[in-house]
Amino acid sequence: MKIGNIVVGQSGGPTSAINASLAGVFQAAKDLGAEKIYGMRHGIEGILKEEFINLSQTLGSDSKVQLLKITPSSALGSCRYKLPKVEKDEQTYQKIFDILKKYDISHFFYIGGNDSMDTIQKLSSYGARIGSNITFIGIPKTIDNDLPLTDHTPGYGSAAKYIAAATKEVIYDASVYPFPAVTIMEIMGRDAGWLTAASSLSRGEDCDGPDLIYLPERPFDVEQFVDNVKEKMSQKYAVVIAVSEGLRDATGTYICDSLASKKVDAFGHRQLECTGKALTNMLEVLHCKTRAIELNTLQRCAAHMLSKTDIDESFQSGYEGVMAASKGETGKMVTFHRISNTPYQLEYRLSDINLIANQQRSVPGKYITKGGTDVSDSIREYIEPLIQGEYTPQYKNGVPSYFRF
Amino acid sequence: MKIGNIVVGQSGGPTSAINASLAGVFQAAKDLGAEKIYGMRHGIEGILKEEFINLSQTLGSDSKVQLLKITPSSALGSCRYKLPKVEKDEQTYQKIFDILKKYDISHFFYIGGNDSMDTIQKLSSYGARIGSNITFIGIPKTIDNDLPLTDHTPGYGSAAKYIAAATKEVIYDASVYPFPAVTIMEIMGRDAGWLTAASSLSRGEDCDGPDLIYLPERPFDVEQFVDNVKEKMSQKYAVVIAVSEGLRDATGTYICDSLASKKVDAFGHRQLECTGKALTNMLEVLHCKTRAIELNTLQRCAAHMLSKTDIDESFQSGYEGVMAASKGETGKMVTFHRISNTPYQLEYRLSDINLIANQQRSVPGKYITKGGTDVSDSIREYIEPLIQGEYTPQYKNGVPSYFRF
Repeated sequence: MKIGNIVVGQSGGPTSAINASLAGVFQAAKDLGAEKIYGMRHGIEGILKEEFINLSQTLGSDSKVQLLKITPSSALGSCRYKLPKVEKDEQTYQKIFDILKKYDISHFFYIGGNDSMDTIQKLSSYGARIGSNITFIGIPKTIDNDLPLTDHTPGYGSAAKYIAAATKEVIYDASVYPFPAVTIMEIMGRDAGWLTAASSLSRGEDCDGPDLIYLPERPFDVEQFVDNVKEKMSQKYAVVIAVSEGLRDATGTYICDSLASKKVDAFGHRQLECTGKALTNMLEVLHCKTRAIELNTLQRCAAHMLSKTDIDESFQSGYEGVMAASKGETGKMVTFHRISNTPYQLEYRLSDINLIANQQRSVPGKYITKGGTDVSDSIREYIEPLIQGEYTPQYKNGVPSYFRF
Repeated sequence: MKIGNIVVGQSGGPTSAINASLAGVFQAAKDLGAEKIYGMRHGIEGILKEEFINLSQTLGSDSKVQLLKITPSSALGSCRYKLPKVEKDEQTYQKIFDILKKYDISHFFYIGGNDSMDTIQKLSSYGARIGSNITFIGIPKTIDNDLPLTDHTPGYGSAAKYIAAATKEVIYDASVYPFPAVTIMEIMGRDAGWLTAASSLSRGEDCDGPDLIYLPERPFDVEQFVDNVKEKMSQKYAVVIAVSEGLRDATGTYICDSLASKKVDAFGHRQLECTGKALTNMLEVLHCKTRAIELNTLQRCAAHMLSKTDIDESFQSGYEGVMAASKGETGKMVTFHRISNTPYQLEYRLSDINLIANQQRSVPGKYITKGGTDVSDSIREYIEPLIQGEYTPQYKNGVPSYFRF
């Protein structure tokens, strides 16, 4: 079965796995004999500007595809562009479909998170309205792991693996002195605590893990927090705490905003601050050494320590997307369905994009324990299979080497 | 040649390599037939409190020594204790020597940086004064690479490797959007810029490296900085800058202090802030997205990506220290001497502790270029051999596993 020309784009925040999905799309399209495989520069903006990369040329060798697979960030470039509603701006839609026609595109693939699936939804429904034959398929991507209808998302496993490893290393580093000290690790996830929960996987024979873990799924109370820390400090010197960047108080205000609201710098500028730093300031009353560590973008691009499981699944999700499109599927996203945990088995299916776009999936309450200060042991069963295995980087002069267009 | 009982301690900030030196001391002492090999808990404080670990028992198997070698942080615990001057408090010295006598110690080893070498200096000269036969040998350790008389220091290579890799990954992550953005990476080193300079090793065919690099060896001018950034932004969207945490203005005031001096939080507390964050605030005038990434302790404990060269040398420095002590050497530190660069060859020697303690070694001016906004290509020849090779972590359930007493 030979397919027509395809175009693929990447959108939203980069991850360590989004290029693996791109490699999967490319490989499947190549295997199915696609004549032209285009990459759009900076997502949908690349369509509107007709900025394409001819992937058949630039990814000519298998070794390049392999290197792309383990390269972090969005090799095609990304965007934060959200399509307007068709009622408000049909011209943009017409322009996109004109350009897709000009390049004789049969299949459109978009790798991304919530917002990107909104793009797939809008384009596929507009396509249906005008009777277009072009198929539109979404390939999931987000370290946040917050897309609905899928067991997990590509990119999450590698970020979770890095977070678990970094947490253990930070705990080792923080625990050397015989005096009280509090370290707060701030982990990504504005609305969902999946990444912060992964810090618990640092626990094992060699490490006790974080002493306290706070997810954004529970309202955060600063006074209660200080009390929790005090209690831990009565038991040990080095207290290490994992917090989500998205912690909010009972009114729904982000902690980083509520604590930083009156702050100005030497030049009178309002100060924005990270949650971890704001919380260490709240611990001044404890008169001990404090440190805030923000994992920042390091947690989403640490391709020097990928989860093999995550990268292989990310590749496969791209591959399956193309296979589905070749059978005429459209307006769908590839989703992951866990068949069993021991042994870990996964099935790839398709889900209606209308049930996914702009939706979010939080950490279920069953995983949140000890009054919202920890996660359950059972969440390990969920996360652990996703961080298994490694891809050794291709070192060059002592530093990992990656693919660049 | 059989040696008597030994005691070994770790001091100062932890690194990824300080346990490799401990493993080297242990292995040499074992090979030389030491009867008792003690580890002091929390450095010199462990002596004063008689808190020892019997390493012969706890490190009984070769596999444990191997695991210790690749374990980050200070397994024995560390301290920030600085010995008083003997004129002011001779009692403390008497107490230390009484305890060393009680445990029949022949050789004392201290693994650490500037302050730790001060301890070796004081104890060895006091020992000489009272006619003690105990030898005192310092094993160098600091990621800062700022000890004199040694080509480089154990721990630097692994930190430099991590920094080079993280810089490349951050640049990949920061470069995906088609709009202006500035990312500032803050790297450790209060007085010496060796670590910040290592960010330049991210440069290669696949990465242009940081656009600007500022070391603490040059006075930092905020206005000039903003101009430098403006110029870079006229050439490209994503500007990535590496700065040392220890940047100071012409008066010698740390930038993080001078910019943060008037800041208070919502509760009126004075705000301490990192250099990178303070500098992003200065870029508000450019009206673009900014982000500060502080590598923080992640850069000194990232044992999931060690430099094999560094770890092997760190082990060997401990080993050589014991060999030297067994020959009666005292009041010395093990130093590294580079015999050749191609092929890279190193020789271990001993240097007089009086020439090392409390001294610092900065990045020479020849390596600092472009008006203090970059480092020369030639610094690569110096750093690159130190980051070669890797040790694959011992993964357990998907996460690196380490040694713990």
